Amino acid sequence: MKKIMPDPDAGGLTATIDGIDEAGQPVSVPVVVERPMTIYLNRQEIVTAMTLGDWPDCMAVGFLRNQNMIRDDDVITAIDVDDDLGVIVVRTSEETDFEDKLQKKVRTSGCAQGTVFGDMMERFEEITLNTDARIHTSALIRLSKAINTTPSLYLSAGAIHGCVLAEGDQPLVYMEDIGRHNAVDKIAGWMFLNKVQGHDKIFYTTGRLTSEMVIKAVQMEIPILVSRSGFTESGVELARQAGLTLIGRARGKRFTALSGFDRIVHDAAITGDTGDDAVEALSPQRKQRDQAR
Amino acid sequence: MKKIMPDPDAGGLTATIDGIDEAGQPVSVPVVVERPMTIYLNRQEIVTAMTLGDWPDCMAVGFLRNQNMIRDDDVITAIDVDDDLGVIVVRTSEETDFEDKLQKKVRTSGCAQGTVFGDMMERFEEITLNTDARIHTSALIRLSKAINTTPSLYLSAGAIHGCVLAEGDQPLVYMEDIGRHNAVDKIAGWMFLNKVQGHDKIFYTTGRLTSEMVIKAVQMEIPILVSRSGFTESGVELARQAGLTLIGRARGKRFTALSGFDRIVHDAAITGDTGDDAVEALSPQRKQRDQAR
Repeated sequence: MKKIMPDPDAGGLTATIDGIDEAGQPVSVPVVVERPMTIYLNRQEIVTAMTLGDWPDCMAVGFLRNQNMIRDDDVITAIDVDDDLGVIVVRTSEETDFEDKLQKKVRTSGCAQGTVFGDMMERFEEITLNTDARIHTSALIRLSKAINTTPSLYLSAGAIHGCVLAEGDQPLVYMEDIGRHNAVDKIAGWMFLNKVQGHDKIFYTTGRLTSEMVIKAVQMEIPILVSRSGFTESGVELARQAGLTLIGRARGKRFTALSGFDRIVHDAAITGDTGDDAVEALSPQRKQRDQAR
Repeated sequence: MKKIMPDPDAGGLTATIDGIDEAGQPVSVPVVVERPMTIYLNRQEIVTAMTLGDWPDCMAVGFLRNQNMIRDDDVITAIDVDDDLGVIVVRTSEETDFEDKLQKKVRTSGCAQGTVFGDMMERFEEITLNTDARIHTSALIRLSKAINTTPSLYLSAGAIHGCVLAEGDQPLVYMEDIGRHNAVDKIAGWMFLNKVQGHDKIFYTTGRLTSEMVIKAVQMEIPILVSRSGFTESGVELARQAGLTLIGRARGKRFTALSGFDRIVHDAAITGDTGDDAVEALSPQRKQRDQAR
């Protein structure tokens, strides 16, 4: 599988803007671009998203997929993107009427004004996540380091969220967007279009572990969700309900897990609070204790 | 004016959740609560927000105000909050039909799925921000420090955004919410209900300086917007269009300003990159140069 990584030097994603610094000295800083893109499903206008604008096809398909407007068995016949008009049209072989879904909307957390259409929870309760999946703490440390050192818009311009689809300690697809839900949707769309399953994957996000983030991970059938940020209570509650492994505040070697502990294999020992990079193999006793947990 | 500061020990805002840490050891962590609250304007259901749930009256009024669904001359006759049902009803002396506004919605950035109803920009172009307002860099350093050391849910639980209405170096109203737009709306509502004007104030947010954040600051007629986070291009563009002073990446003594430089008075000297707290009075030459800018 070809890895998809951010392309911070791609044209059109940042603009260089002149300003002043704290001493009144002139500075030029790269700033991420946001633009409106309107998603259509066949002839129906669904929503206008403010987005970075890369991977429009994946974002549109992922959004529709995560809202259950496109199902597993739906056949996408075409995706037309008009950059000038800011329009993405996803065409399926059979049309559906989404009037009901469009009317029921909920503002979501993490972003005060997020909108979740009514059917987002529809599949949530039906999905059984893979109980055989495992995340080794040593792999998690390597994965976090790989993500944090990958050249990205986050490192070059900031003010952006990143989401990563990973397997073991390997990032496979790393998408960024001004809105973290756009970044999630881009990965969901990429998975749908490339027929990649989530059951043996890890999902990493820079954003908080809110209810919406948990719902989307479950929709993607990914059993392990990791964030460098914190939790909200309903995010934890939904994760426990779905049996999702929820790991937050993952920085360096540290993390807090609040759901799905069985999938976590503690094979890296944490040596004190020194903040150094030493990772020790666990003693046999420690392994035994962890296995008995 | 009585200052409004966060109350991290108030009941119902956090839950203590048991989990494990990176070594597999049990931990108990405080986690912020999010709950759905549905805002009604008279008999019209407007939106359901996932929110922390404190200051529901301010949040509802601020949301309606920032969407231009309530005008300056509207008289609010009652605000009924039903915590059990999760309902906030704002009643005005004259009813209006908002069907058109409810139909035109735009997903916003910062949060992929934010919703801005169509008329949010309606007042934007009519507002002239106060050109006499000033922000002294020495006051900004003190203000940032005051905010960052105020006891808050951010310090105790994390995963939350804060917004502060300030005057000079004094925080006046400090609201938090899982969604940063809820936090802004709470302050807008508080200002409307307490008849507090924005023209001589500073608005501080922990969130990014996106188009929506700029639009809301301008709606509140606040001439100076400060964030510890970064910028998006359309946020900068709108700030320049409105003549808003936009200061981002404000950490310690450092910041980057990308719009409205005339309101910034550089009266604090930055002594190298040492990160210490020394703030020197500017030399007369430096002051002269800054004034001539």
